[in-house]
Amino acid sequence: MSDERSFDLDAYTERRQRLNDKILEGGHLGIKRFFNLDTKAYEDGAVDARTKEMLGLVASLVLRCTDCIDYHLVQCRRLGVTDAELQEVFNVALVVGGSIVIPHIRSAVETLESLPDA
Amino acid sequence: MSDERSFDLDAYTERRQRLNDKILEGGHLGIKRFFNLDTKAYEDGAVDARTKEMLGLVASLVLRCTDCIDYHLVQCRRLGVTDAELQEVFNVALVVGGSIVIPHIRSAVETLESLPDA
Amino acid sequence: MSDERSFDLDAYTERRQRLNDKILEGGHLGIKRFFNLDTKAYEDGAVDARTKEMLGLVASLVLRCTDCIDYHLVQCRRLGVTDAELQEVFNVALVVGGSIVIPHIRSAVETLESLPDA
Amino acid sequence: MSDERSFDLDAYTERRQRLNDKILEGGHLGIKRFFNLDTKAYEDGAVDARTKEMLGLVASLVLRCTDCIDYHLVQCRRLGVTDAELQEVFNVALVVGGSIVIPHIRSAVETLESLPDA
Amino acid sequence: MSDERSFDLDAYTERRQRLNDKILEGGHLGIKRFFNLDTKAYEDGAVDARTKEMLGLVASLVLRCTDCIDYHLVQCRRLGVTDAELQEVFNVALVVGGSIVIPHIRSAVETLESLPDA
Amino acid sequence: MSDERSFDLDAYTERRQRLNDKILEGGHLGIKRFFNLDTKAYEDGAVDARTKEMLGLVASLVLRCTDCIDYHLVQCRRLGVTDAELQEVFNVALVVGGSIVIPHIRSAVETLESLPDA
Repeated sequence: MSDERSFDLDAYTERRQRLNDKILEGGHLGIKRFFNLDTKAYEDGAVDARTKEMLGLVASLVLRCTDCIDYHLVQCRRLGVTDAELQEVFNVALVVGGSIVIPHIRSAVETLESLPDA
Repeated sequence: MSDERSFDLDAYTERRQRLNDKILEGGHLGIKRFFNLDTKAYEDGAVDARTKEMLGLVASLVLRCTDCIDYHLVQCRRLGVTDAELQEVFNVALVVGGSIVIPHIRSAVETLESLPDA
Repeated sequence: MSDERSFDLDAYTERRQRLNDKILEGGHLGIKRFFNLDTKAYEDGAVDARTKEMLGLVASLVLRCTDCIDYHLVQCRRLGVTDAELQEVFNVALVVGGSIVIPHIRSAVETLESLPDA
Repeated sequence: MSDERSFDLDAYTERRQRLNDKILEGGHLGIKRFFNLDTKAYEDGAVDARTKEMLGLVASLVLRCTDCIDYHLVQCRRLGVTDAELQEVFNVALVVGGSIVIPHIRSAVETLESLPDA
Repeated sequence: MSDERSFDLDAYTERRQRLNDKILEGGHLGIKRFFNLDTKAYEDGAVDARTKEMLGLVASLVLRCTDCIDYHLVQCRRLGVTDAELQEVFNVALVVGGSIVIPHIRSAVETLESLPDA
Repeated sequence: MSDERSFDLDAYTERRQRLNDKILEGGHLGIKRFFNLDTKAYEDGAVDARTKEMLGLVASLVLRCTDCIDYHLVQCRRLGVTDAELQEVFNVALVVGGSIVIPHIRSAVETLESLPDA
């Protein structure tokens, strides 16, 4: 976390896709099905997709998974989650997860700087 | 987790209050202020209290904190979060956090059995 | 963890089954599918079921999930994992996860005392 | 964490000793050596034992290991760590680890109530 | 962790400050107050600042937060924590948190190489 | 995790060795002994070295330690663990630890691409 970092959405998406493909090429049925469950978990249902992405974001923040945080930030922006709402999510994550979440909030605002506006 | 457990809301609330009071009697200003931040994090704001309780619940589930899960379940019910919505939150927590979350979902449904309906 | 605890396999299994049923009664398709993936992950494949249960046990130990540890101990015993092998798994978990794993190894030997021999 | 709990030092110590003995009876050399390292880590050295117990306590709090917290509380009291110092340790743990540490601070004050004064 | 890394204190401090400012510009009162609590938690009190930084370091090590570890190493050096004391803190973190802490101890000695002597 | 990364085994091994040497130069007996325990934990015993490396891998995956994952992947390949077996280990880690393990599986397949075949 201590190095300068700029988030490049295209490079991020390309690497993610390339390696997910590589994982799925392995042909393990359980892994393939897990990936499907992961995708479906954030689709509209009794809770709408926009709120689910906020749920995914707060979970990723308290578990301190940079890659997951970046993914849900991209989705939140795509679905119109506002900056004020993102700050509320950051605040819940900070209170629940403590100061060790702060480096990931720093990384998150860095990612947001690099994303096109909502 | 392996023992039979029934959730008694009154006993839970009484113990929580008694021990929070005991902690605050210690007089540490930082701890007192943290408790205030914790309370305020779930109040209506750019994100409404109902959604914030779902955020708190999913964070507590993936961090596997039984006491925190019980607290947010009580709040979710109080604010009218439906069973279908709770299941969606459980599902996001399960996908993000994996099967180690399942014992806490078992504990959560046990708690819900003991709570008055929404 | 500080209270005396004795593991009752029948009570454990009954509670687990009753609450799993309760969770699945909720009817969420994602949760149902996750439960299926969870079951299948420990079936014979390129790695045999016996080794997979040792993998599940070490993962549960380092993540410090008492309920999951108990489950995999039962399965390990059922599949003939020896005491000497279990100790090796405990040792890997202890080295990887540190002294915070010790209370769960204490709980594990307590559970093993209560299980019928392999 | 939601059930009433009272800490009984004698029962705690007896169970801990009995199960540690049981673990060591297994005869695994690695586990035995780890237990020795664990004991030695808290002895006087470049950092004194009293401070080391505070280090062990804050680590146990942020990792949320009730059994470990109880152990280090007993040691801290034995070595004369004051209530004001314990509150400072609780505060650092709370800020670093967030509100999910609170149930363990509640449990800690409950344990302290049951311990003889320093 | 697998890439060569050299710690540049000025770049680290500049990035940290720039992104903290960015976070606080968002204007969320809860986040601002949390940052204040975080700062105050390490000030002299019933426990002196030097010991508190060692508490912060051991907590960051067992939670495996590189950015937090670097921060507390800088503070420890600034407050005259000796190499022998740092090694004791590393040892407690290693015993409590296990071998998964080792990559962070490697990163810590790399950071220390780059810091001016105490 | 969001940046392109290629695993260079020689650079990885050199850095690891250089920093381990640096840590051990510090002369702390406890740390030295822990390093010995860590090495011995993966040697042939009641469980063979090959299976122990799979145990180490699954533990590193669910604890999400990139450096540890890379280390155990190298050892698994060296001991002839097949791609089909690695996929089974990935699947257990994924089911136990959830989608937050996925970025580390992506990183693992990237590392495997860079390793000589078994």
